[in-house]
Amino acid sequence: MDFQRELEYRASDAERVLNAYLPEEKGYQVNVISAMNYSVTAGGKRLRPILMAETYKLFGGSSPAIRPFMAAIEMIHNYSLVHDDLEAMDNDKYRRGMLTTHAKYGEDIGVLAGDGLLNLAFETAISAFSVEKDRPDIVIKSLQILSDKAGINGMIGGQAADVAEDRSDGISRDMLDFIYEAKTSALIEAAMMIGAVLGGASSEETDTVEKAASLIGKAFQIMDDILDATGDEKTLGKETGQDERNHKVTLITFDGLLKARRAVSDLTDEGLSLILGLPYENRFLEKLIEYMAHRVK
Amino acid sequence: MDFQRELEYRASDAERVLNAYLPEEKGYQVNVISAMNYSVTAGGKRLRPILMAETYKLFGGSSPAIRPFMAAIEMIHNYSLVHDDLEAMDNDKYRRGMLTTHAKYGEDIGVLAGDGLLNLAFETAISAFSVEKDRPDIVIKSLQILSDKAGINGMIGGQAADVAEDRSDGISRDMLDFIYEAKTSALIEAAMMIGAVLGGASSEETDTVEKAASLIGKAFQIMDDILDATGDEKTLGKETGQDERNHKVTLITFDGLLKARRAVSDLTDEGLSLILGLPYENRFLEKLIEYMAHRVK
Repeated sequence: MDFQRELEYRASDAERVLNAYLPEEKGYQVNVISAMNYSVTAGGKRLRPILMAETYKLFGGSSPAIRPFMAAIEMIHNYSLVHDDLEAMDNDKYRRGMLTTHAKYGEDIGVLAGDGLLNLAFETAISAFSVEKDRPDIVIKSLQILSDKAGINGMIGGQAADVAEDRSDGISRDMLDFIYEAKTSALIEAAMMIGAVLGGASSEETDTVEKAASLIGKAFQIMDDILDATGDEKTLGKETGQDERNHKVTLITFDGLLKARRAVSDLTDEGLSLILGLPYENRFLEKLIEYMAHRVK
Repeated sequence: MDFQRELEYRASDAERVLNAYLPEEKGYQVNVISAMNYSVTAGGKRLRPILMAETYKLFGGSSPAIRPFMAAIEMIHNYSLVHDDLEAMDNDKYRRGMLTTHAKYGEDIGVLAGDGLLNLAFETAISAFSVEKDRPDIVIKSLQILSDKAGINGMIGGQAADVAEDRSDGISRDMLDFIYEAKTSALIEAAMMIGAVLGGASSEETDTVEKAASLIGKAFQIMDDILDATGDEKTLGKETGQDERNHKVTLITFDGLLKARRAVSDLTDEGLSLILGLPYENRFLEKLIEYMAHRVK
């Protein structure tokens, strides 16, 4: 099978897992449940659950806890998009060519749907104890990673620094590094580290995976900036040129497009070589990491 | 010591516990951290952690896991207030006589501070595994209760139904019951049930505590409605008469003030008698439940 078809197959698999944990649309709170399900099922590359599952396979994992954690990380990613798109934040009306959650359901339900997804992510991850009764320790470790990387020292911290940047006149390279690491890398680290932990990796191996994921995540974010500057709106399903219009500082502002492209390659090579240095093999994961650096959407 | 002083003492104790889990205000994301700490330290009755601690004492608890869970439930309560106050939601500028979080830090940081507190609540609760190594089972059970009662079948569900009610022309008594149960009782149930579980209660006893907390929570919400209709703005630290101005349907709309007051008494008596039926005693908890039905703020 060629890579693209394999990737689609894995994305469908991640969606099947995710759907198994979505709530039924009923009750007096059906408004928020519909909005949550809408935002989660409105497409997306499902990269985080796929990275988790593939890292888990790299280590030869066999714990049923992988499924709830795959769903949980995708819920956290999606809640962050729902809140990012709010009028109070980026005020985006479209994502992946569809109305954003608040544009469809109202700003108030947008807030609550994001809250609902974040809470459901933890409910789902905590449910892993019910399917993995022999190894509560790996579920505990995975919960610690998930909550740490999604929080103020990870994803939320990066979003807050991003807001601070929008409000300031200047931004240092150090601050930009923090934003990339926290806003984007942290959740990719969580995905791959949880895959490693549930797959049975040692703590040294999990540290190596964390470093690799940090580099891969940074490359991914720079690629995002490059696509915003040069990509095709139709392929991307969203407006491009937003960073320039919003006077947003990115790595391209500091280094220019050419050096930014080189950074994507270098970071990807470095991250990949850490994965290749482990005494296990998963060819699909290697190809996926390469793909993330060369994607067009 | 008289009850009022004992209550103040316990509120200070709950605040000491809470403060131990608050993040340091530093880093590029200091904006969101400051906003989180501001919202959590801006006063409040600390009823939920106190109810948790007192139920735990009722069962003779001795697990160190009680501390992180006391902090976690107060964080969840506070995040819900921060998001409730947003312009997109109730658009409240003052709470407890102070500026609300979004009024002070901006609507975007208001969104992120709420997210940060919800995430931190789970980080904090999950950290209980590190202090309670002998009984991971009671920590797991408590995490399940916390995430369930705070989610779409609990608190968030109640808030969403509340929004649906605002948008509709009529509301049934059944829907109002759901809103009271989900929006207010659920978190009080979580507080008391987690206190019971960590205190060593059997599952039958925990079920009894859940029923009692449901009744007590409903009485608490009706009292809130009564105070909004009749209370003193200065004592309450917020505007009264809001429900009437916003054409908000409450139990008073259905039954009038007199019957609503009687409902508070009846529900409290019923809840209290369930607690008194348990083969343990905590006089302070009994007085606290009585107090909640007769409070003036």
